[in-house]
Amino acid sequence: MMRYPRPMLDSEFIYLDHAAATPVDEQVRAAMAPYETQLFFNPSSPYKPAWDVRHAFEQARADLAHAIGAKPAEVVITAGATESINLAVGAVNACEGEPGLQGGAHHVVASAIEHSAVLACVQQHPHTLVPVNGNGLIDPRDVRAAIRDDTCLVTIGLANNEIGTIQPLRAISETIQHVRQERLRNGSAVPIYLHTDASQCAGLLDVNVSTLGVDMLTLNAAKIYGPKQVGLLWASRDVRLCPLVVGGGQERGLRSGTENVAGAVGFAQALQMAVSQRKEEAARLSSLRDALQKALLDANPDAVVSGHKKHRLPNLLHISFPGLDAERLVYLLEDQGVYVGTGAACAANKATRSHVLEAIGLADDAADGSLRFSLGRLSTQDNTQRAARIVVDVVRGEYERVGSEHVRMNAESFWDNEPVPPKGLW
Amino acid sequence: MMRYPRPMLDSEFIYLDHAAATPVDEQVRAAMAPYETQLFFNPSSPYKPAWDVRHAFEQARADLAHAIGAKPAEVVITAGATESINLAVGAVNACEGEPGLQGGAHHVVASAIEHSAVLACVQQHPHTLVPVNGNGLIDPRDVRAAIRDDTCLVTIGLANNEIGTIQPLRAISETIQHVRQERLRNGSAVPIYLHTDASQCAGLLDVNVSTLGVDMLTLNAAKIYGPKQVGLLWASRDVRLCPLVVGGGQERGLRSGTENVAGAVGFAQALQMAVSQRKEEAARLSSLRDALQKALLDANPDAVVSGHKKHRLPNLLHISFPGLDAERLVYLLEDQGVYVGTGAACAANKATRSHVLEAIGLADDAADGSLRFSLGRLSTQDNTQRAARIVVDVVRGEYERVGSEHVRMNAESFWDNEPVPPKGLW
Repeated sequence: MMRYPRPMLDSEFIYLDHAAATPVDEQVRAAMAPYETQLFFNPSSPYKPAWDVRHAFEQARADLAHAIGAKPAEVVITAGATESINLAVGAVNACEGEPGLQGGAHHVVASAIEHSAVLACVQQHPHTLVPVNGNGLIDPRDVRAAIRDDTCLVTIGLANNEIGTIQPLRAISETIQHVRQERLRNGSAVPIYLHTDASQCAGLLDVNVSTLGVDMLTLNAAKIYGPKQVGLLWASRDVRLCPLVVGGGQERGLRSGTENVAGAVGFAQALQMAVSQRKEEAARLSSLRDALQKALLDANPDAVVSGHKKHRLPNLLHISFPGLDAERLVYLLEDQGVYVGTGAACAANKATRSHVLEAIGLADDAADGSLRFSLGRLSTQDNTQRAARIVVDVVRGEYERVGSEHVRMNAESFWDNEPVPPKGLW
Repeated sequence: MMRYPRPMLDSEFIYLDHAAATPVDEQVRAAMAPYETQLFFNPSSPYKPAWDVRHAFEQARADLAHAIGAKPAEVVITAGATESINLAVGAVNACEGEPGLQGGAHHVVASAIEHSAVLACVQQHPHTLVPVNGNGLIDPRDVRAAIRDDTCLVTIGLANNEIGTIQPLRAISETIQHVRQERLRNGSAVPIYLHTDASQCAGLLDVNVSTLGVDMLTLNAAKIYGPKQVGLLWASRDVRLCPLVVGGGQERGLRSGTENVAGAVGFAQALQMAVSQRKEEAARLSSLRDALQKALLDANPDAVVSGHKKHRLPNLLHISFPGLDAERLVYLLEDQGVYVGTGAACAANKATRSHVLEAIGLADDAADGSLRFSLGRLSTQDNTQRAARIVVDVVRGEYERVGSEHVRMNAESFWDNEPVPPKGLW
């Protein structure tokens, strides 16, 4: 009856696209299993075993909240990061009745390099996109300049999903705090919130909401070895959310639909593992990534590494080979069992040039030859070194094929274009 | 680290709440497993194994579509029935620009006994609720009377989730076809669509979209032994949908977010099994349900069975014991290992009286003593008979406790209040 493809995966394949998807961890699967088969009850059903299921769901919410330093009542469990982001940006609609906001305008500020899900939401409102520098870094002063009297929301991803640059969110939070104080002094009651999509970051960076200084935070189970189609939005009690989906009134009316108990339990298990293993794993991946980067740059001195040298996701390497075609590289690498992305999976699928690379001013010639390596739990020293050798060979072969005239076009050295970051940003 | 309750389930428990939740079938779990661990790739990633995952997702969509007699391109995979319903009712927003609709009004017609998810969506628009008769039956003439010149949507559940009454959807569809023809003659370009939530019905009734004559259909994997948090909305190509969640542009821009490949594959497996086993399973459950009903009515001649005698979900028995307290009954039955609901799980959780029972005019005294038995794959002749004996004993004990003065109050006999249904309705 089922005719689904079961590709014969080479067990020796080297997966370097953890930013696009992660396998579900076996401990996560084990934690979920009882809620799929034995304890499958609807948490709203009236008998005791269903109450136990409800309790497990609320325990998962509490564990998720604890992992980010938040209160359980402030966590909404969603069907993934995209839904969370839509819910977060939709909060500006709740500002409609606020005094001081004439004409129902709800201005939103975002960075030019946000994930397409954020940009799509922001574009539904009056908005300003803040530019980034060549390393993908946002200057908090630019955020301040973009904030208008009717700005209700600033949404800035904690780390960019393509080039890995980590934003000075704490400094942006302080900027917003200043705006709040100004508004208070001026008698304006217009609220302003800071949302961050940290989906790429849990397990790699600190995602404690107090440390970050945000009002809303999006996380995604699918990026941290949890189940697909599960995410959360944390919103501080000050934020009024507007439901996208109405119905039975689950999640305090903010997100109706029968609760995904197994999914929440799996997400909680995944997040707890990610947070507890973070420091060790980030150090391990950073070391593997740095070695990969060195190997590729040693062999290709004119390759361009994008992202901030220091403030970059420890598992991510975005590297451009000017004059080469990234799609061909992906194909040739796949043929050698190395799976690597060209950028955001959903953008890659549309075969358009990345808005992130445009925003950092990467030359088209380099942008078109860009690969994104993202390491994770499937990465080992051995398979990362093997991948490095394969990439070096494939890139050399491609340069030989296209001729070397392209090699020195438009290439900038990574280490030279690093501006001095403002002090005390992070 | 994890402190989740693992209730010691008596392996001999008797589950009679299949309408609230179903366990994930082992074949469904097996179909999903490869897409959680080995084939976990993001379907939008650029390498071949990710394309295979994309292909599996599209194959699942094709199988889902085939099972309901629809085209794959018309199926949107969602995070469950509530989201599907929100998407369906939100389609009236797409009518905004239609000529003939002044002032942006988009009137919706629903029945008074729709699921709370449908009612919550409908209440966001100008709407009219069509009454039902004492058996929960909608008269298509009442639907016609409720349709205004600016009505864009009629949404009627195929079968009621509390009392099981199956609506004459085909006749309602024909009514709407007449309205379309009238509008055409009158030069009106206002569209009108018929949506049905058939979440309770797959595996029990024919859910072929052509047979039903609908324009949109909602289904839910969680009600048919598939995974939680997966549903679909089928919408004919004539319907313009408005996305609730924007972002990466997945699902033809109608529902952004990384695709839940394992969930879709599991849903397809579950729906195919439900459809292929439907006739046999419906007959089996109907026979068990009828025996349960007879046993309970024989012991309690004044109990009230709600729903239509003939046009009723084959697995469902809604029975009221006037003068008794349903919550106490649930508790006492649970103590004997029998799990039964009092109605819709989400309504039950709020301890409010059911709007369905109010709509059919059931006396409060009976409504408050109502149980909903819903049979399914966990039901056998043996455990249904045992349940019948336990319910009879518990009900007898309760009547002895509260005294018999309540017994004959407000009770109507099921078999006497059955009106003659209009001919050719189904």
